[in-house]
Amino acid sequence: MLSNSKIKFLKSLHSKKFRTKHRQYIIEGHRIINEALKAKVELGGIWCSDDYAKKNELFLNSISKTQIRYEITSEKSLSQVCDSQNNQGIIGLIDLPHNKELDINLSNFLILDNISNPGNMGTIIRTAVWFGIKDVIISSECVDLYNSKVVRSAMGAHFHLNQIVIKNLDSLITKLQKNGFSIIGAELNGTSINKFKAPNKWALVLGSEAHGISLSIKSLLDESITIPNKDNIESLNVAVAAGIILNSLV
Amino acid sequence: MLSNSKIKFLKSLHSKKFRTKHRQYIIEGHRIINEALKAKVELGGIWCSDDYAKKNELFLNSISKTQIRYEITSEKSLSQVCDSQNNQGIIGLIDLPHNKELDINLSNFLILDNISNPGNMGTIIRTAVWFGIKDVIISSECVDLYNSKVVRSAMGAHFHLNQIVIKNLDSLITKLQKNGFSIIGAELNGTSINKFKAPNKWALVLGSEAHGISLSIKSLLDESITIPNKDNIESLNVAVAAGIILNSLV
Repeated sequence: MLSNSKIKFLKSLHSKKFRTKHRQYIIEGHRIINEALKAKVELGGIWCSDDYAKKNELFLNSISKTQIRYEITSEKSLSQVCDSQNNQGIIGLIDLPHNKELDINLSNFLILDNISNPGNMGTIIRTAVWFGIKDVIISSECVDLYNSKVVRSAMGAHFHLNQIVIKNLDSLITKLQKNGFSIIGAELNGTSINKFKAPNKWALVLGSEAHGISLSIKSLLDESITIPNKDNIESLNVAVAAGIILNSLV
Repeated sequence: MLSNSKIKFLKSLHSKKFRTKHRQYIIEGHRIINEALKAKVELGGIWCSDDYAKKNELFLNSISKTQIRYEITSEKSLSQVCDSQNNQGIIGLIDLPHNKELDINLSNFLILDNISNPGNMGTIIRTAVWFGIKDVIISSECVDLYNSKVVRSAMGAHFHLNQIVIKNLDSLITKLQKNGFSIIGAELNGTSINKFKAPNKWALVLGSEAHGISLSIKSLLDESITIPNKDNIESLNVAVAAGIILNSLV
């Protein structure tokens, strides 16, 4: 059973303040817990409902064979902890990874400048990992990477990621340029992605959904690329744009 | 001001049952209202808050010059009508378009089989319109196209769309094939999209987020294509996949 104090603690992790304080975050749902186990992430506990346990005996048996502990709890206490309206009957607790230093020898980077929508953020990192880009540089204005909606949309991509949260994108970009990287921005007016020849070492910058790439970053770009449209619709979703561009670059 | 009965009516349009009955739906937010005006969609009314009106005088002036009426109402009544937690102070009412018959002479189609997540549905049609695919065939198991979350994610793509909601995808696919269309399915194991040569006449099938393309549809496919991944992450978001594939096909 989940004690009241444990419920209170787990609930507190929906706020960035408490995630930062306790250095832990919550994952919700069968699929993402399964991804965490496959990626051999150390879970600080799993809680599931009676109903979930009855329907997923084999899965829980496989967890029993690991070092990870799971507890069966009431549907009611689980729904108190869950952020999603339709909780799937299982949650897990994970340590926040430590923020990495930038390893300039790694091949290519994704730079996220002011991505504010949690669904977009999660989908972007899911897409980046799909294309093998695991080094994601995130401006401190972006939505928190461990926000529960980001975690849900990323579908386990977090477990494959070396993320670098950074206050000063400008100086980092200058450092990348000094080391031979081309800084490529996704913009509305640039070279067509279908005609663009990717350089060897690149970092792709994606800007905010509403305002695009910040002015200070824009002035540092080596290249601007764009996805040609066939209609005068205003813009593509930033995560869709990320997918199209990464498929071209990688 | 919005009367109580009008509030009740507008609120009822968040349910598919009442949208179908009254043949109207609601759009929320400045950007999408602006898209509707640009696309010259006939709006059955616009309501905005005092606060919105103060901040958007020029925009409201431009509306005054059209046939469309707007009313200023209280923030409170607007928030009663709005589905989104952070309403932007403006909503509009639009007639549902009539379901079209399939025009087989049109060039290419997108076929959505069982897309259940409203955010994905909206992002897919926004992406389709970006690539000039305005004829979207939607299985009746998909989330309703006029669900308010679908409308929000589509960012105005609805105004450019000829949608065809259909009960029996199988017979429609057979009809397309008889007329020389290749039916291409997005699957996990298929020809790499980067090596695939698009035929002249095609229809792209996207399947459910959790289960992929239905078995009965799968057996009808002429081609299966896939987006190669660099990591063993389980899947791409279906809207991102739509973007990557459409960019290749178009």
